[in-house]
Amino acid sequence: MLTIGVDIGGTKVAAGVVDHNGRILDRVKYPTPANDPRGLADVVAKAVEELRGRRHGDVVQAVGVGVAGFVDEDRATVQIAVNLGLRDDPLKERVQQRVGLPVVIENDANAAAWAEARFGAGRGSDHIVCVTLGTGIGGGLVIGGRLHRGRFGVAAEVGHYRVVPHGRRCACGNHGCWEQYASGRALVAAGQDLARTDPVAAERMLKLAGGVVEQIEGHIITQAAMDGDEGALTCFRTIGEWAGAGLADLAAILDPECFVLGGGVSDAGAILLEPVRDAFARNVSGRPGRRLAEIRLAELGGEAGIVGAGDLARH
Amino acid sequence: MLTIGVDIGGTKVAAGVVDHNGRILDRVKYPTPANDPRGLADVVAKAVEELRGRRHGDVVQAVGVGVAGFVDEDRATVQIAVNLGLRDDPLKERVQQRVGLPVVIENDANAAAWAEARFGAGRGSDHIVCVTLGTGIGGGLVIGGRLHRGRFGVAAEVGHYRVVPHGRRCACGNHGCWEQYASGRALVAAGQDLARTDPVAAERMLKLAGGVVEQIEGHIITQAAMDGDEGALTCFRTIGEWAGAGLADLAAILDPECFVLGGGVSDAGAILLEPVRDAFARNVSGRPGRRLAEIRLAELGGEAGIVGAGDLARH
Amino acid sequence: MLTIGVDIGGTKVAAGVVDHNGRILDRVKYPTPANDPRGLADVVAKAVEELRGRRHGDVVQAVGVGVAGFVDEDRATVQIAVNLGLRDDPLKERVQQRVGLPVVIENDANAAAWAEARFGAGRGSDHIVCVTLGTGIGGGLVIGGRLHRGRFGVAAEVGHYRVVPHGRRCACGNHGCWEQYASGRALVAAGQDLARTDPVAAERMLKLAGGVVEQIEGHIITQAAMDGDEGALTCFRTIGEWAGAGLADLAAILDPECFVLGGGVSDAGAILLEPVRDAFARNVSGRPGRRLAEIRLAELGGEAGIVGAGDLARH
Amino acid sequence: MLTIGVDIGGTKVAAGVVDHNGRILDRVKYPTPANDPRGLADVVAKAVEELRGRRHGDVVQAVGVGVAGFVDEDRATVQIAVNLGLRDDPLKERVQQRVGLPVVIENDANAAAWAEARFGAGRGSDHIVCVTLGTGIGGGLVIGGRLHRGRFGVAAEVGHYRVVPHGRRCACGNHGCWEQYASGRALVAAGQDLARTDPVAAERMLKLAGGVVEQIEGHIITQAAMDGDEGALTCFRTIGEWAGAGLADLAAILDPECFVLGGGVSDAGAILLEPVRDAFARNVSGRPGRRLAEIRLAELGGEAGIVGAGDLARH
Repeated sequence: MLTIGVDIGGTKVAAGVVDHNGRILDRVKYPTPANDPRGLADVVAKAVEELRGRRHGDVVQAVGVGVAGFVDEDRATVQIAVNLGLRDDPLKERVQQRVGLPVVIENDANAAAWAEARFGAGRGSDHIVCVTLGTGIGGGLVIGGRLHRGRFGVAAEVGHYRVVPHGRRCACGNHGCWEQYASGRALVAAGQDLARTDPVAAERMLKLAGGVVEQIEGHIITQAAMDGDEGALTCFRTIGEWAGAGLADLAAILDPECFVLGGGVSDAGAILLEPVRDAFARNVSGRPGRRLAEIRLAELGGEAGIVGAGDLARH
Repeated sequence: MLTIGVDIGGTKVAAGVVDHNGRILDRVKYPTPANDPRGLADVVAKAVEELRGRRHGDVVQAVGVGVAGFVDEDRATVQIAVNLGLRDDPLKERVQQRVGLPVVIENDANAAAWAEARFGAGRGSDHIVCVTLGTGIGGGLVIGGRLHRGRFGVAAEVGHYRVVPHGRRCACGNHGCWEQYASGRALVAAGQDLARTDPVAAERMLKLAGGVVEQIEGHIITQAAMDGDEGALTCFRTIGEWAGAGLADLAAILDPECFVLGGGVSDAGAILLEPVRDAFARNVSGRPGRRLAEIRLAELGGEAGIVGAGDLARH
Repeated sequence: MLTIGVDIGGTKVAAGVVDHNGRILDRVKYPTPANDPRGLADVVAKAVEELRGRRHGDVVQAVGVGVAGFVDEDRATVQIAVNLGLRDDPLKERVQQRVGLPVVIENDANAAAWAEARFGAGRGSDHIVCVTLGTGIGGGLVIGGRLHRGRFGVAAEVGHYRVVPHGRRCACGNHGCWEQYASGRALVAAGQDLARTDPVAAERMLKLAGGVVEQIEGHIITQAAMDGDEGALTCFRTIGEWAGAGLADLAAILDPECFVLGGGVSDAGAILLEPVRDAFARNVSGRPGRRLAEIRLAELGGEAGIVGAGDLARH
Repeated sequence: MLTIGVDIGGTKVAAGVVDHNGRILDRVKYPTPANDPRGLADVVAKAVEELRGRRHGDVVQAVGVGVAGFVDEDRATVQIAVNLGLRDDPLKERVQQRVGLPVVIENDANAAAWAEARFGAGRGSDHIVCVTLGTGIGGGLVIGGRLHRGRFGVAAEVGHYRVVPHGRRCACGNHGCWEQYASGRALVAAGQDLARTDPVAAERMLKLAGGVVEQIEGHIITQAAMDGDEGALTCFRTIGEWAGAGLADLAAILDPECFVLGGGVSDAGAILLEPVRDAFARNVSGRPGRRLAEIRLAELGGEAGIVGAGDLARH
């Protein structure tokens, strides 16, 4: 049995035929229509139909759709997806009508987490916390071998637990959310702040950014860090400290077997992992003596969303 | 089928015969032997034998033991129980040898949470977070209808996630743990601090404490608050603010259907609940629009540990 | 002997003839030229010359110029004034050459503080801390009856001491500066945050702002608070708590006789003063027993800058 | 003209004849009587008389007494000195009656600060902030060349401004006071916490402390750090970070020419200075561009109190 996984992002709709081993057998990609719920369903249907018309299409039996937004507990309605302009959108029904196959809707971070748990860095573990360090911070929880969606479908919004009372303002309306300290945006803020207040220490990053503070972006900080630049490494240490301390909090609450770190910030690999693991070990409660969860890098990269959505449609 | 639940506390070992509806049919109580692992197993066995010798004893088929400490994932060994002087103690085996029945060991907060989930304030819900506001803060998670123990048996140590970086010192070795802000100990500290720095505002509490700051304890603050004393109410508002903000963090991570608050601080009832609910609503992310978990008071009181341990032995 | 005080603001240059009692005998006003150091000196000179050509002009003997920026310890050079586009600008020399009178340059918050100390809310006290709660937070210190400029001319930047480690981002490049919590901008942020996350509680403010969150500005929150609106009062309580706690810190360091609060936020009068005094009393160290500094509202309003600059030119 | 300076400490009363260059020409020492205000005045008088009976005694013209407590603005009464058991004690009058010379009473940290300003690390500067990193944190401010006592005599209690909202409990009744983060007590707490939670990292300190966590004291951490032990150096970096960030706050408020660091923690010299200067430079507002105050170690050691008290009696 094959399924189709669809990953609706802010700029593109990516879809693929997924087998029971989490392999993508075929793929298509379309631009995402802006602020057009029906048009979006049309594009998803078009992607599905195109894949069904190809070699493996005739044995596809279900469709899973991952979307960056709040999905209700019935996995049918997108309550809100700010970047896609969806609000209380019956996406499951829309797509189902168009393609005539069973459809499930999932939060995209949940889908990616499920993929990592089943086929990626988390395989073999029953209790997994996936944390996506992208522009913001997303998450997915696998508990007892099952994806934990929460009572209202919005579990694992780990980026929005508070790490600093009266802390930095978050787009969610609160202050001090974890994603203001350990995300890609936080990394960029650290780099730009350094460039403004200590241009000498940020010399290399500034050079890579053409001398313009505002153009110090994540990939530039990562590149500078990989070149061994001390200023950029300091930025990663700062973000890594917050990331590791946050994992320690999640360990106190959930006691998982492993953490899987994904998202753009994790592209830095060991440069990120080292300070994260160090901060985790220094901050986790129950030291010394506690058995420490492993912290691993995600393995599936940008296709985790397709794989996870496809696999969740199977179950 | 009946089971026996045992709750090993710092001063007494309480045991009871528990039926499948969570009712306690018979009970016994013994003092806890100090720093004596074998003696402790003897007392547990004695309690079990006494109950088996009574009216319902012949149909008892299993024993569940709740203990205030870290229990390993096999529910057999107490890794550490500071107040009982246990370390890597094979409690399951010790008790099993003595009573000849199947035995499971559980963390006491987990046992109590399970009882509330099955027979108390949480019945009917599949996703429950129980928080015990006692001297410290304990917790228990029911996820998908099952008790979540974590990979290494130490999940739900919610009192030790960090709410204030560089915050108050905790006995666990960290700083800023939630239990330093929202527990009974925090309530007492708030009351005593007020008495020291503003004796007029703390007049009523001081009077109830015989004029001695150090004797302002939890029950005194609770009593003063119930009498309408503004100073004591302020203490509850402070603790309630931290408790509610903490529940908001747990909601961001777990999205439960309900929270169940137990422990001595919850004896204040609405005096605690009101500021907790208020702070929860003001702090939870996804406002406005998010569906809010309910916050309820625990219903089983001090016997939740017996009931939960007994019921867990059944499964 | 009379002097002329000039207050260079972001939009206008206001000048007045000031007598030895701090009275303004005559005044003129011109628009501020943007990013034009020489043009700015021209406008200052024009204002001075116009006033000298009028009735009191012939007895004017010196000119004081207040400017929103860092002024060096010789009171001659504006090191940096972001909003005026000045950097290492020899403003004293420029103006002196044009008007042929002795000139002193002052930081504008220092000038206003001096005016309040000599002729306003602080008269009669030798140790005064003035805090201007405007868009940001400025300050001025009078110690032993003299204006304290600091070794490098930049004392009393009280808005930039840190009240929250890892706190809100400040334009100065740091995080957690006081002015992110107790200024007019912080008040507006509190009002807008409330409107976003709890529109019902912010109903009155939203109505006054035509339903547009982004148009909830300081005067709207002040008006709503004066009408008794609970949402707006909550915003003032939040800002007042931070303001009062900050004054407690300044009292620990400086032990002044009084604090003088000015700036737009202080237009709310008692609505601000009450929570500030309450928070100050709860937070100041040495309680109970310590003699508390008074906290007063500024008396000279928007003309304090002219009066202070003029008076400082006299000494 | 010579004076006598007296430094009343918790265990000894030290006195010396002080010349106008801040040199101590002769000295005596007596045990401090406990909880005996009259007895204390007797001992001070005895010390003064003994010194007057010696070689330089006949030209002594005044007595200055430094005392660890709150001294009123008239420099006559000790409002409270917890460790000496004084409360509203007319110490000036008591001593004056006994010795028949003019007497001034000073807070001991103020006296030591004055000595450093006149004859020690601060000489040549008019704006100096002295910070004593002892068990707690004391301070003294020299502003415009004069000792700043504040309106009520209690200025420069810099150890009790708040650096962490909801932070560590302080003996003063507040939470988050600077002295809970950057004092000798904070250093010891850091060392002992490390030993408890990561005994391997604290191995060297533990060895020096005979294996007993509670016996890791300041001099042991200092010794281990001087031996190059990474665990001990980490403790100094932590304390140094807080110390330097605090100096940045004081610079924002006071803009001094230099800071003088004294007290037991400063015995570590460069081991402390380096992280302090680094943190100061990273945290001070107005970067880049701001001229940085110097940070120096105190030079007069334990005799600063005698020298300062003696010199203040001269003026």
